[in-house]
Amino acid sequence: MKTFASDNWAPVCPEVMQALIEANSGHSPAYGDDQYTAKAKQVFKKHFGEASETYFVYNGTAANILALATANHSFNAVICSEHAHINVDECGAPENFSGTKLIDIANNDGKLTVKSVEKHAEALRYPHQVVPNFISISQPTELGTLYSLHELKTLADYAHSHNLYLHIDGARIANAAIALEADFRTMITETGVDILSFGGTKNGMMFGEAVVVLKPELNKYFELYRKQGMQLASKMRYISAQFIALMENNIWKKNALQANSMAMLLAKKLAKYPEIQFTQAVETNGLWLKLNNEMAKKLQAISFFHPWDPDNNEYRIMTAYDTTEDDINKFVAALEVG
Amino acid sequence: MKTFASDNWAPVCPEVMQALIEANSGHSPAYGDDQYTAKAKQVFKKHFGEASETYFVYNGTAANILALATANHSFNAVICSEHAHINVDECGAPENFSGTKLIDIANNDGKLTVKSVEKHAEALRYPHQVVPNFISISQPTELGTLYSLHELKTLADYAHSHNLYLHIDGARIANAAIALEADFRTMITETGVDILSFGGTKNGMMFGEAVVVLKPELNKYFELYRKQGMQLASKMRYISAQFIALMENNIWKKNALQANSMAMLLAKKLAKYPEIQFTQAVETNGLWLKLNNEMAKKLQAISFFHPWDPDNNEYRIMTAYDTTEDDINKFVAALEVG
Amino acid sequence: MKTFASDNWAPVCPEVMQALIEANSGHSPAYGDDQYTAKAKQVFKKHFGEASETYFVYNGTAANILALATANHSFNAVICSEHAHINVDECGAPENFSGTKLIDIANNDGKLTVKSVEKHAEALRYPHQVVPNFISISQPTELGTLYSLHELKTLADYAHSHNLYLHIDGARIANAAIALEADFRTMITETGVDILSFGGTKNGMMFGEAVVVLKPELNKYFELYRKQGMQLASKMRYISAQFIALMENNIWKKNALQANSMAMLLAKKLAKYPEIQFTQAVETNGLWLKLNNEMAKKLQAISFFHPWDPDNNEYRIMTAYDTTEDDINKFVAALEVG
Amino acid sequence: MKTFASDNWAPVCPEVMQALIEANSGHSPAYGDDQYTAKAKQVFKKHFGEASETYFVYNGTAANILALATANHSFNAVICSEHAHINVDECGAPENFSGTKLIDIANNDGKLTVKSVEKHAEALRYPHQVVPNFISISQPTELGTLYSLHELKTLADYAHSHNLYLHIDGARIANAAIALEADFRTMITETGVDILSFGGTKNGMMFGEAVVVLKPELNKYFELYRKQGMQLASKMRYISAQFIALMENNIWKKNALQANSMAMLLAKKLAKYPEIQFTQAVETNGLWLKLNNEMAKKLQAISFFHPWDPDNNEYRIMTAYDTTEDDINKFVAALEVG
Repeated sequence: MKTFASDNWAPVCPEVMQALIEANSGHSPAYGDDQYTAKAKQVFKKHFGEASETYFVYNGTAANILALATANHSFNAVICSEHAHINVDECGAPENFSGTKLIDIANNDGKLTVKSVEKHAEALRYPHQVVPNFISISQPTELGTLYSLHELKTLADYAHSHNLYLHIDGARIANAAIALEADFRTMITETGVDILSFGGTKNGMMFGEAVVVLKPELNKYFELYRKQGMQLASKMRYISAQFIALMENNIWKKNALQANSMAMLLAKKLAKYPEIQFTQAVETNGLWLKLNNEMAKKLQAISFFHPWDPDNNEYRIMTAYDTTEDDINKFVAALEVG
Repeated sequence: MKTFASDNWAPVCPEVMQALIEANSGHSPAYGDDQYTAKAKQVFKKHFGEASETYFVYNGTAANILALATANHSFNAVICSEHAHINVDECGAPENFSGTKLIDIANNDGKLTVKSVEKHAEALRYPHQVVPNFISISQPTELGTLYSLHELKTLADYAHSHNLYLHIDGARIANAAIALEADFRTMITETGVDILSFGGTKNGMMFGEAVVVLKPELNKYFELYRKQGMQLASKMRYISAQFIALMENNIWKKNALQANSMAMLLAKKLAKYPEIQFTQAVETNGLWLKLNNEMAKKLQAISFFHPWDPDNNEYRIMTAYDTTEDDINKFVAALEVG
Repeated sequence: MKTFASDNWAPVCPEVMQALIEANSGHSPAYGDDQYTAKAKQVFKKHFGEASETYFVYNGTAANILALATANHSFNAVICSEHAHINVDECGAPENFSGTKLIDIANNDGKLTVKSVEKHAEALRYPHQVVPNFISISQPTELGTLYSLHELKTLADYAHSHNLYLHIDGARIANAAIALEADFRTMITETGVDILSFGGTKNGMMFGEAVVVLKPELNKYFELYRKQGMQLASKMRYISAQFIALMENNIWKKNALQANSMAMLLAKKLAKYPEIQFTQAVETNGLWLKLNNEMAKKLQAISFFHPWDPDNNEYRIMTAYDTTEDDINKFVAALEVG
Repeated sequence: MKTFASDNWAPVCPEVMQALIEANSGHSPAYGDDQYTAKAKQVFKKHFGEASETYFVYNGTAANILALATANHSFNAVICSEHAHINVDECGAPENFSGTKLIDIANNDGKLTVKSVEKHAEALRYPHQVVPNFISISQPTELGTLYSLHELKTLADYAHSHNLYLHIDGARIANAAIALEADFRTMITETGVDILSFGGTKNGMMFGEAVVVLKPELNKYFELYRKQGMQLASKMRYISAQFIALMENNIWKKNALQANSMAMLLAKKLAKYPEIQFTQAVETNGLWLKLNNEMAKKLQAISFFHPWDPDNNEYRIMTAYDTTEDDINKFVAALEVG
C-alpha cells in the first residue's frame, strides 16, 4: 500500500528506472567525465539558460550545503526561515562544513519577506558580528507554501542591493513550477535567483540532486567543495542518466503534476469535514492540518503519515508522483467508517 | 575624561598593575607551569570549591567558546538567548571552532526560562536534528539584568534532568555577585552551574579571563582545546598574577561594587527626568534607556556612550570600577544646561 | 571497449542491477527504516560477526571520513601512509569535516609498519601536539599491495596497546579477501580491526559503500555524523538492496576473483617483456609499472589507463569485475604490432 | 637564576614594562580604536613600508593561523617544513580553524628549498587533491637556522610564479634580522614575503604578536577572522603600547642582539669540548647539540634546558634578551667541576 508519509517513500518512476538500465552498458569515465553527465548538463542549460552551470550531487542536504559554500567564508551568515530544512533537518551540516552561522527568522507560513529579513541583512558591529552573505529560501517551503514570481523577484532584488545572494532550496522545485504554471527559466533565472538546489529524488529519482548555478562567480570553487564535501560520485553517469530521463522528456512535469493534483483532490475531500482545520494553504503536494484523535487514528489505519506538531494534533500528509485517485478515495473513505 | 562607553575602556586598576610589576622578575616556566598560575588556580578553588578547576585564557570570546567546546561534538547545539554575546558578538566563533549550532531564543530581558527553553531541549527527529548539549546564559545578561539564585538553580536542575549542561557567560560575573550579595560558591557552585566563563578584563585587569569548570568530566580535553583555540599564553604568569591580585584580596569586590553603585546613582538621577524611559531594570553596572535627541546630544558632549537600538533612540550607558560620583554629577549636569 | 582505467569505470554488475529493479516496488520508509536496510545489516553481521554494526553511505570518501569521525576530536590525529587516499585524494575532507590532522608516513609500498608508526603514536608535548587516535591503512593499499593477516594483527595489537584504533580503508576490500583467501571475519574481525570502510562501488555496485563498526563504542554517534556529513540517503533501500545482492550470494567473491585473476594474467603476459619494469608487486587487481613511450602509446591506443608518476613513466593498469581474458589478449597483442 | 629553557621564560624587558605603566592612564576606546594602536600601526609602516598593514593578536599560534586564513579556503593547503611550529606545536589549530591541510616536507635543517617544494606546489588531480596556496617558512627556523636574503627572495619568486603566497612564521624574527644584519624592509618587504607573523613575546614583551600584511588583498578579511579566531583584544592599547616601546626605539634590536651574542658566546665556549656535537649551525639564539649524560647532568644542575630528541641525547639551549656573559660563564663552568 502506498503511504502519505513523504514523496521520498515512493519508488523510482518507470522512465528513470529504464534510463538506469540503459545507461548500464560498457565502461564510462568516472567522476563526471562521461557522456551522460555532459548531456545532462546541457539539458539543464535548456531549462535555466546558457549562462547556468549544473552540478550533480547525491542528496538534498549536500545540494544545500554546497550551494551555500560557494560564496561563504566562515565569518559569513545565511539568513533563513526558522522552518528551513538547513536550519532544522540537516543536523548542523552548514555550521560544520563551512563554519557558517544561520540567522533564522520566525514566521508562520515558512516564508521570508523583505520586511522580516531587513534588520538582519547587514552586520551592525563590524567585526564583531557575522556578515550575512545569503538569503536562503525554500520553494515550496517546508510548510508547502509558495513564493509567487513577484515575491521571488522582490527578494532577489533586495538581496542584490544588499550584497547578498539568493539561494533556493528546491527539494520539490518541480512541484512549485507546476503550481505556479511557470517554467524554470521564468521562476528561477528571470527572477534573479543566484543558486538553486534542484531536487530529483522526490520527483521520482533513485538518488541525486543538482545544484544549478546562475551567477558565474559561484562556479569557481564548486567542484573542490563537492569533492571535499564527499559528494563526488565516481559512477556519476547513473545520476546524470536519471536527470536526462526526468528533464528531457517532461517527466518531471508529469510527476509533479500528479503529486500536486492528488494533494488538491485530497484537500478538497477533507475540506468537507468541519472538524479538520487546515493550518497552511495547500499549494503544492502536502497538506498541513489538525485532526482529532479519532480521525487521525482512522486515517493512519489506512496509510501512515507523519505527525507535525504532536502537541497541537497537527499532521503532515504528502502525496507523491505515484499517488492515484483510488489511493485518495480509499484513504478518505476511512473517515466514513463508523 | 572617563567615558560611559564600556567597562573595557577603563584602564587597569592599581592593585592589578602593581601585581604585574611584581611578577616581572626572573625566569619562570612558560605555558602555565609557573608558580603564579599554580597559586591562582588555588585561589579560584577557595572561591568555587575544591572540586573546581580553573584555566586561564586571553579574552572573553575564548572563555565562552572553549567552555562550550568541553562537551560539544559538531552535531550538538547550544541553547542561548537571541541577545547572547556568543550569538551576536563573536563573529560566528562557536560555529567555526566546534561546528556547534546555536539555538537562540527570543526574549525581551536577555533571560532564558525553563518555559522558553523546553521546546528546544531535545532533538525531535534523530538523527536529522542537532542534539542540544548546553544551555548557555549570561549573568548578568547582555541587557544588564540578573538571574536570581533561584532562577539559576531552576535552570541548572532543568538542564541536568535533560542531559544538558548549564554554562554561564560571566564577563561581568563580579557585578552579578555584588548585586545578588552572593559569593561565587553560592551563586555558581551551589546552584549547579557546570562551567563558567569568569571575566577579569572588565573588572580591572589588563587582559585575561578564566574558565571555571565545576563538573570534573568537563576538564578532560580543556587544555588541548585551549592550545588548539590559540589561547595558551606562553608567559601565563602575567594572567595568573593579575587574577591573584583581584581574587585574593577582594579587589574584585571593591571594583564591582563601585561600578554597580555608580550605575545605581546615575539611574536615580536620570529617573527624575520624565522624558527618559528605562528599557531594562538597572541591576548591575549598565543602564538601557531611551533618550530624545536633545538629551542624547547633551550627554554625549560630556562623555561618549554607545547607541543600542538607533531606530528606537535606545542607548546603553556603562559604568566602570573607576567611575566616580563626580563623574556622574558632571555627566548629569549636562542635562541642566539650557 | 572496456578500459583499464579504473574499476569504477565499469558498469553495474547484472546481479546488482537486477536487485535494484526488484527493490523498485511500492512505498518504503525513508532514511534507512526500510526492510532492505534491516536485511542488509543482518547480512553484514553474518560476514563480520554479531557484534558488528554496519551503516550505509554514498561513497568511499564518506565511508573513510565518517569512520574516522567516530572517535576523533579536532585535537586528534590520524596516522596514515603518505599514499593514503585520505591523504592525497579526498581534497582535505578529513581536515575539514572533523578538524583532524593527518600524520602521513613515507614509504615505498603503500604500507605502514609498527616501526614506521611508532615515533608518531604518542603526542610528545602535551598539550602542544595533536593526540593520535587512529592508525588508518588501506587494504589493499593504493599501490595494490596487501597486508598479510599477521601484519594486520600486529598493527591492531600495536594500536590497541597505544590507545589507538585501527581503521581500514577497504575501497577494494573484496579484492584483498580473494587475494588472501580469507573471509571477512578472519581478515577483519579476528585480526582486531576496529572499523572498516567497505567498498561496494568498485566491486560492481552503482553507488554505496558501508562502514562496518567492530568496536561497539564507535557506534555511538555514527548516525549523527552521517547525517551531518550529508550522507544519509533518503531512499536508502536502493543502497541496501545492492549490498544484499552482492553479499548474500557471494557475488562479491565472483567479481573480485575475476578482477584479480585478470590482473594476474595480464601481469604474467607483460612480464615477458623485459622493457617493462613492475614497480609494485601485483597482489590484487592493479598493476604498477614503467613503460617506455612506444609501448605506452601502443597500449593506450587499445584502452585507456592512467599515468601514475608521469616524470618516471610509471602507469597504473586496473582490471575490473568485467575484464575478460579476451580483453587482456587484445590489449597485450597491441605490443606485438610492428 | 635565569634558565636556558626558552626566551619565553624570560620576564618583560624594562622598556616595555615602563610603556605598559605609562599607557595605563584614563579611558581609551576598546578593540583597537585607540591612539596607541593607531600609532603602533604607523610604527610598523616605517619598518615595513607604507603599503603594509599590521594587526595585533595575543600570541604566536594566532598570528600564524590568522595569517594563513587570509587567503585559504578549506580546500587549500599550506606547504611547510615537517619541523614547522604550525605542523608540530599548534595542536592542529590550522586544520581546525580553516580546514586547511598542511603538506609537510622532510628536511634536516628546518628549511624548505624550491627543489623540496616543487613536487607539491600544484594539485595534480583536480578536484581530488587540495590546492596549495601558501608556502610557510620559519625565520629563523625551529632549528635555529636562517634563510639568507637570497634564499628568501628565491622562495618568494617561486611562490609567486606558482600562484602561492609566502608566509613567514617570525616568532623570533628580530633575532633573524640581527643575524642577517638586515632591517625588516630588506629582509621581508623587498624579498617579496607576502605576510609575516611578527614575534613580540620572545623579544621581551608580556604578550602580543603582530601580523604584518605586505600584499593588500590579504587585508580584506583579517579583522573578521581575528575576531572569529578569539583574538580581538578589548584593551588592545596594552599590546600596542608594548610594540611602540619595542619598535620605535630599537629596543627590539638591543634585545635580539643580546640574545644572539650570548648564544654565539656559549657556542664558542662549548665548542672547546670535543664530546659535544652540534647538530645545527648556531645562527641565532639557540643551540642544538648532543650531550653525554654526565655533561647534561652537570649543565642541568645549573640551569634547566629542554631535551630535543631524547633518543639521541639531543638538547636545545636557548638564550634570551636578558642572558648575560656572567650567566654563560657560570653555566659552562659546571662542566669543569670534577
